[in-house]
Parts: sequence; structure tokens; C-alpha cells
Amino acid sequence: MKLDDLINQVSEWLRGTGSDSDIVISSRIRLARNFTGIPFPHWANKEQENKVIEQVKAGISQSAHLKNSLFFMLSDLDNIDKQFLVERHLMSHEHATHPDTKAICLTSNEVISIMINEEDHLRIQVMKSGFDLDDAWQIINKLDDDLSNNFPFAFSKELGYLTACPTNTGTAMRVSIMLHLPVLVMTRQIDRVLDAIAKLSFTTRGLYGEGTQASGNFFQISNQVSLGQKEEEILDKLKGVIRQIIDQEKTARQALLSKHKHMLEDKIWRSYGTLINAHIITSQETVELLSMLRLGQDLGIIKGLERYLINELFILTQPAHLQQIEKKKLNPQERDIKRAELIREKLSIKKINKDNTN
Amino acid sequence: MKLDDLINQVSEWLRGTGSDSDIVISSRIRLARNFTGIPFPHWANKEQENKVIEQVKAGISQSAHLKNSLFFMLSDLDNIDKQFLVERHLMSHEHATHPDTKAICLTSNEVISIMINEEDHLRIQVMKSGFDLDDAWQIINKLDDDLSNNFPFAFSKELGYLTACPTNTGTAMRVSIMLHLPVLVMTRQIDRVLDAIAKLSFTTRGLYGEGTQASGNFFQISNQVSLGQKEEEILDKLKGVIRQIIDQEKTARQALLSKHKHMLEDKIWRSYGTLINAHIITSQETVELLSMLRLGQDLGIIKGLERYLINELFILTQPAHLQQIEKKKLNPQERDIKRAELIREKLSIKKINKDNTN
Repeated sequence: MKLDDLINQVSEWLRGTGSDSDIVISSRIRLARNFTGIPFPHWANKEQENKVIEQVKAGISQSAHLKNSLFFMLSDLDNIDKQFLVERHLMSHEHATHPDTKAICLTSNEVISIMINEEDHLRIQVMKSGFDLDDAWQIINKLDDDLSNNFPFAFSKELGYLTACPTNTGTAMRVSIMLHLPVLVMTRQIDRVLDAIAKLSFTTRGLYGEGTQASGNFFQISNQVSLGQKEEEILDKLKGVIRQIIDQEKTARQALLSKHKHMLEDKIWRSYGTLINAHIITSQETVELLSMLRLGQDLGIIKGLERYLINELFILTQPAHLQQIEKKKLNPQERDIKRAELIREKLSIKKINKDNTN
Repeated sequence: MKLDDLINQVSEWLRGTGSDSDIVISSRIRLARNFTGIPFPHWANKEQENKVIEQVKAGISQSAHLKNSLFFMLSDLDNIDKQFLVERHLMSHEHATHPDTKAICLTSNEVISIMINEEDHLRIQVMKSGFDLDDAWQIINKLDDDLSNNFPFAFSKELGYLTACPTNTGTAMRVSIMLHLPVLVMTRQIDRVLDAIAKLSFTTRGLYGEGTQASGNFFQISNQVSLGQKEEEILDKLKGVIRQIIDQEKTARQALLSKHKHMLEDKIWRSYGTLINAHIITSQETVELLSMLRLGQDLGIIKGLERYLINELFILTQPAHLQQIEKKKLNPQERDIKRAELIREKLSIKKINKDNTN
């Protein structure tokens, strides 16, 4: 399997399966790890960074989870390839910026990805579709063991895992749940929800992680604290909070549906109409309209569209994906035209049942 | 034929046939006439107004053009019926307001309508689809003769035809051409065009006559002066002006199509997408979107839609038409829902060819 082949498959986290997948897009756990005796990447020299890569490779070869995984040196990838991996949430934007002696390992189903020589020697990520932290935790826990089998990770009895940035020290674990909360946004209840989350020391980000704004009604909720708590405690606390948000969005959806059905149908069908007819469309507008389409599918207003297809369109319409599909560089204007073309193509092959006029 | 039956047919002026019908919606001539020896309607008593009605009826019975025409006392029509006739451009809003001893006569194809006891004893109107003033003039000239055969019209050798309002005196003729000028509007050339028209003593109005704003890119151009010129002179002068405007819109369309095809396709297809998917839509938005749809049909961007269907939708989606179709009173919110439903219904039976993605 080559990198280019990934575009022909739906990433695990976009399949739209798993628990509560009408509201929870994905569950992600990330562990930061560093080998003992080698400086953190920002302080390490090339030789030391290469040593990290070798040690990771040794771990990979012994891990059942990583059998047949893909491994790339970032210096071997062009800019579109790197951006493509960022858009698929397989690596960070920062990792792509200075490719020298950095690498990435990923499983072909895109559940596991490991960034090597990012801020820490290893950033291990497991991402699952829907609300499925238990499974993600089992996988990443095993991976953690596999990768430290030959060469131990830097660990202090007092602090826990040692990391380049002290805010990660301790469990060095970040758990992130991507939620789709269109009706809490529409009914302006979202600010209250986000305030409550912040008070509980969780952070909220947009579709593309740190520093990005929430757009198209997508919110990524993560733990902020990784020190002084056990992994299972962090997971349980986050699960409780997410469960509450899911319930609030569900309640808001039912209330809106019973009180403002026509308004909701209008908004959803107009979004569909624009998506399937536009000839020029920006990335931002696409995310907003797809958000409405997904809500329409969740509520049974739009029938005949599979959830994975809508999820997939969120990613396929991103800049590097469009260029990967076209196999050439496109400027923003060209992308807006190609994006519209792709959406029309993907949506028009589906037979939509419009017989719900009242 | 009853009044209700009109809703099942496309008015002559909406057929989308006739010369230059891609830009000229309709050609209309109106003559104001008053019988000698009877005061103008605002000064006449009931008995005198009834006498007017009798004299018109006598004229109607002898006119070949008015054979099998429909005749209604406005007091016999309910509010929706009256508004319905206004929306079809068969009578004025003013005529509907005080129905007492007022009447209307119209031919079943809606080419001819005669308001009786409006501001003048008679307001004779002939309306044709497309740019067809010659035919309209022939018809109305004959009607003028027919109706004054038994009872002569008030006429002064010095002034011409006498009318209630002195601005109409002379030919007492108003010629109006309804134009669809979306690209002159889009490219902001319209103000220059309207300025030039005003300097030539022509007036510009919207879809619904005096006092209404131009909306959805429709402009009704009329002569202002009816005194001191022969009918043929007025007609020739207006024809020359309209011909120039048609050419300017045509040139602007071709330029836009060659320079900004994607933008134009985007605008037109998005309008189609909204029309065929909206569940709540106002009258104003409908006119704007239908205007784009009509442009798309004119330019061959949207194939498979007949022009008459689009024209018809402009009228069917008006408030009284919606209520006439539903056979009951509807409040504005209910109308916005029914309007959207009607548009979806009418447009979705057409097989649209979308294979022009190049």
C-alpha cells in the first residue's frame, strides 16, 4: 500500500460507526513518549534523532498492532502529501513544517499513527470512529508496552512520563473527542456548554486542533491536565462530560424538530441544494453546509445518504486532498471549482428521497 | 369559463414567446377613454357610473375582439379574486380597492382587459408576450373604434382625448415594456441605462407598476408624455429605446459568459438548487432566484426548463395565486411554506440536464 492509496478509502474515524456516531465523530487518544538517554528532539542532533528512528523501528517490528504498517521519512514526502496527512488527522501541522529526520508510521486502516521526532520522540495516536474511548485505550496501552519493550521510555516515579513540554508531563496523555453540535449552536446554548467545559479544565478546539477555530459546528473537547491523575481517571471524567453534552444536543435536536420543523427542513434542504448545485465553493462554506447535511441525515430528514459519505466529503474537499485527487497543484480559485465539482459528483450518485414535504 | 379557471392557464404575456422574449417579457398598451356627457368616475354618481357600464356592454357586444369575453362586477368578487387579477396584471391595485360600481372585462386568453370606472370610464389594455408592440397596437386601435361606435369618447381637437388626470390627456396612451435585465444589474451598468431613459422622458417601474420598486431585475419602461405626439410617434420612439437596451443586455450577457462563466454558472445553479429545495421562501427571494433561473435558461446553462414555466412561477407564487390554488386564506408564514412546496413541485417534474460541468 502506498500513501496515494489512502485517498481511496474512508479513514476509520470517518466511518460514522461506533457508539453515538450521530453526535460523536471520533475518539482519539495521544501519548507522548521519549526514550531515556536521548535528548528531546529540539535539543537532539541528527545522529541522536536517527537513533530514535531506529529504536522506534525495532519496536514496530515486534508489535502485532503495527504489522504491515506504513513508514515514511517526511523528507521523502512532497508538500501535498504532508498536508494530506495533516488533513486526515494523522499528523500535526508542526510535524510537516521541518521534515528533516522526522518520520511517521501508520496502519493502513488509519487507526494508529506515530509521529517520530515531533516535539517528543514519539507521539502515539489511536483514533476510532464514534464514542469509543475504551477500545482506543486498549489499543494504545498495548502499543505503549510494545514500543518500550526494548528501549525504556523516560519516566520519573514522582512525575510520571517526561516530555519536552512540562504541560504534558505525567500521563503525557491527551484524550480528544470530536463532537458535532449543530443544534446547540443554532439555539445559542453552546456558549453555556463551553463555559462549563472550561471550568472543568477541559479545552475546546476546532476541526484542526490547537489554535484553530471551531467551524461548521464541530468541537474537539480534550483534557488539559495530564499530571496528578491516572489515565483511567482522566478517561472516566471526560467520558462523563461528553455523555452530558451528547444528551444536551439530543434534547435540543428533538425540541427544535418538534417546534420548528419547517425552519429546520428549510435550512437542511437548502444546504443540500447548494452543495449539489454550486460551481464554486470555499472550504469554509463546504464545512458549514455539510454540517447541515449531516444533521439532516441524523434526523432522518434527508434519506438515502450514508453518514460515511458525508464524513468523507469533509476530508476530500480539503485543499491537499483535492490536489491529491487531481494529481497536481491547484491555486485557491481552481480548488473552489474542483471542490464544487467533486461534491456534485459524490452527492449526485445517491438517490435522495425527497418525499417528505410536510 | 370562470375566473377560477384562469389559474390553470398561462397568461398570454407569460408564454415567453414573441420577438426577443429572452429579454422582453411583455409589451403592453393602455388607452384611457371617457364617454362624452358623463362625469369622470370620481365625480359621477352611482347612476352615471351604471350608465358607463351599460355603454361599455353595448360596445363589447359589437366587438369581434371581445366575443366570449368575461365580464365581472368587482362587487361580486372576493378579495383574493381581486388581488389575483392584480397579480396577473389584468387590473390595477386602485381598481380593486373601492369595488362599488366598478367592473372588469377580459378575454379568456388575457390579451385584452378593460377596467370600467377606474380613474377614467375605460382603461383599455392589450398585453402581448415578447417585444410585440405592432400587434398590440393593431388590436387596441380596433378596440378603441369598436367601443366608441355607439357612444363617442370625450375628445378635444386641441388637446386630444380628455382624461380625469391631465397628465394622460392627448393620446391618453401608455406603452409599457417589461424587461428582464439581470446582467446589466449584475455588472452595475443599469444605473447608466436608467439615467439615459429618464433623460428621454421615459419612466421605469418595477414588476407591479407605479410606486413599486424594480425587483428581481425586472424593469417596466413606459412613455411619460402622451400629449403633443401621435400614437405612432410614441410607439416608434419607445421601440428605438427598447431595442438599444436589448442590445446592451445581450452584449453584457455574452461578455460575462466569456469572462466569468464559472461565476455565472455558480450563481445560476445555486439559485436552482435553492428553489428546488427550500421549504420556506418569501415572495421577494422567489423573484430574485427565478430571475437567475430565467437567465440560466436564456443562456443555455440550464437545459430542459421551458421559459413559460419559469414565467408562470413568477405569478403562481404571488400571494393571491397561492391562496387561489389552496382555495383558502393563508397567512404570510403559511404562504412562504406553500410557495416553497409549489416551486419544488413545479420544478421537480422537469428533467434537468446537469451534464455541463465541463
